[in-house]
Amino acid sequence: MIPATISAAYYRGGKSFEVQKKPLLPPKIGEVAVKIAYCGICGTDMHVFHGNMDKRVGFNRIIGHEMSGVVTANGDENSGLAPGKKVVVRPLVHCGSCPACDAGYEHICHNLKFLGLDTDGALQEIWNVPAYTLHELPDSLRLDHAALIEPVAVACHDVRLSQLRDGEHAVVIGGGPIGLLVAIAAREAGGNVVVSEVNPHRLEVARSLGFDAVNPAECDLASEINDRTDGSGAEVVFEVSGTQSGVDAMTSVAAARGRIVMVAIHAKKPQIDLFQFFWRELRLIGARVYEPEDYAMAIELTANGSDAAERLITDIVPLADVQSAFEALDSEPTAMKCLVKVGIE
Amino acid sequence: MIPATISAAYYRGGKSFEVQKKPLLPPKIGEVAVKIAYCGICGTDMHVFHGNMDKRVGFNRIIGHEMSGVVTANGDENSGLAPGKKVVVRPLVHCGSCPACDAGYEHICHNLKFLGLDTDGALQEIWNVPAYTLHELPDSLRLDHAALIEPVAVACHDVRLSQLRDGEHAVVIGGGPIGLLVAIAAREAGGNVVVSEVNPHRLEVARSLGFDAVNPAECDLASEINDRTDGSGAEVVFEVSGTQSGVDAMTSVAAARGRIVMVAIHAKKPQIDLFQFFWRELRLIGARVYEPEDYAMAIELTANGSDAAERLITDIVPLADVQSAFEALDSEPTAMKCLVKVGIE
Repeated sequence: MIPATISAAYYRGGKSFEVQKKPLLPPKIGEVAVKIAYCGICGTDMHVFHGNMDKRVGFNRIIGHEMSGVVTANGDENSGLAPGKKVVVRPLVHCGSCPACDAGYEHICHNLKFLGLDTDGALQEIWNVPAYTLHELPDSLRLDHAALIEPVAVACHDVRLSQLRDGEHAVVIGGGPIGLLVAIAAREAGGNVVVSEVNPHRLEVARSLGFDAVNPAECDLASEINDRTDGSGAEVVFEVSGTQSGVDAMTSVAAARGRIVMVAIHAKKPQIDLFQFFWRELRLIGARVYEPEDYAMAIELTANGSDAAERLITDIVPLADVQSAFEALDSEPTAMKCLVKVGIE
Repeated sequence: MIPATISAAYYRGGKSFEVQKKPLLPPKIGEVAVKIAYCGICGTDMHVFHGNMDKRVGFNRIIGHEMSGVVTANGDENSGLAPGKKVVVRPLVHCGSCPACDAGYEHICHNLKFLGLDTDGALQEIWNVPAYTLHELPDSLRLDHAALIEPVAVACHDVRLSQLRDGEHAVVIGGGPIGLLVAIAAREAGGNVVVSEVNPHRLEVARSLGFDAVNPAECDLASEINDRTDGSGAEVVFEVSGTQSGVDAMTSVAAARGRIVMVAIHAKKPQIDLFQFFWRELRLIGARVYEPEDYAMAIELTANGSDAAERLITDIVPLADVQSAFEALDSEPTAMKCLVKVGIE
């Protein structure tokens, strides 16, 4: 008898993926098998594609973590997840015994494993994951929209850490997919949101989502924010651009005691205007991934935000075309979020 | 009739002070006249001496703000401050109508005036100040020790903003006068404090105050802190050095979700390891001067800390010698805090 096989996309290095068959393995004890519906391609996946993470992922890795799917088999008696249930994975596995875990910060565990980078991920038809990483979805939530929940959870984490209060002003520096999701989550929290972005297409998308969007290459951003805040500046700033100019802007638009959330991952060390941190008692808040409550919020936000999901999902491609999907994202100036349709018709 | 005169030290530019007589003016309505006992010389005063603040202070300015004194006349009927009462001045005058004042952050008022820089200060025998800037002292508090209350209030503000909890680890980067006062305030709040300092004399002073003090030029600071914290790093870090190496160290010694208080004033923009802010969800907290509750805490701490005050006050000079006092601080590698004895025998 020939064992059942499934299709999977393997990263092979040198900007290449290979879609191959692999044996279907049953979930181990404590795991749940999830049939993947959609898997989004995110900035980190693009870093893998560009070879920046070869040391971490190797050349035989199935990546992908922005996914949605349905349970097919349950190896965890206690989880109560019945086959057919729609789910998303919170792709974090913590050690449970480091100082960060001890302090209750399991999502920044010293030995954190990120599923889909440090282990195989969602670009395969069936993905076996620890049961505790799953979040159930409402039956009514569309599985294509549900593939946005992981990045929406990032945004919810950022906004939660900012402690944004109803009526406060927020500036989102950088209007890519994460920036716009942060803007949506900030608006949901009651913030008056301005998006700062230089790319004309992204400005258009931000405006189509109902945001006040400004181009800092064509105006003085600090003056624009002062005009909108009676000279106080923004109580909350999200730096999502990952650029030196974004870091310069973040201190110039923040109010006294303003909270600046560092959403972008800065591989280089930018110069920061610490004098402004002193002068206005600014706060910088580092933010990484998400905690379970951020997923709960993200599921609710996605379930209620299908219009935004429609605007942000700009492409859906079959698993067989994963290579060209990455290549297109590399060159396509108008793409926002591309989903790979993996295993469910 | 010849009007009464008092002595005052005027900053004249070019690293020079001139002690001259000036007329004694009575306090205006709402002001209180304070006979100055002692006035400490701080880092900001040294910046004035070096000419770095000429544009702000001009060449006819009486500086000085780290003071103690007694009330001699009261122009504010409501203040209840009787002549003879020992007092210190919280040298901040806010506008009351800017966005920062509106938000309750009067100490970082957009139009803040710092007494002794933006107005004449305490290097004169009688100083007329707004009544609301005064804090009464216990009769038992020595006036020389009381001249430390202003920098102690800076330290109390830094520690309060850090939200340091009993039993947490704190690293103070930089063991000058402010760094050691921060260390004392952090220990008072229950912190396990390590002082990092390269100057051997300052290391010795830190140890004489009972601190675990390490020299990062002679060891790996991050390893030293890891050893002392079972690998977790310090929950709270105070960057007091104002150097790039201090800024590098601050991210390397902080625990997951560690709070880093920016005590130093960085005129240049240092490079900051934002990746560590992301990876460990670090927080940076800008801190400037103090609020009234910090003065209350500082008065209590100073009243109970005469041993530390004795060790930190390394010189007391008469007002007539103010010029040589500044010159000595400029060249003396073992000086900590020099007080000018102004007007009370």
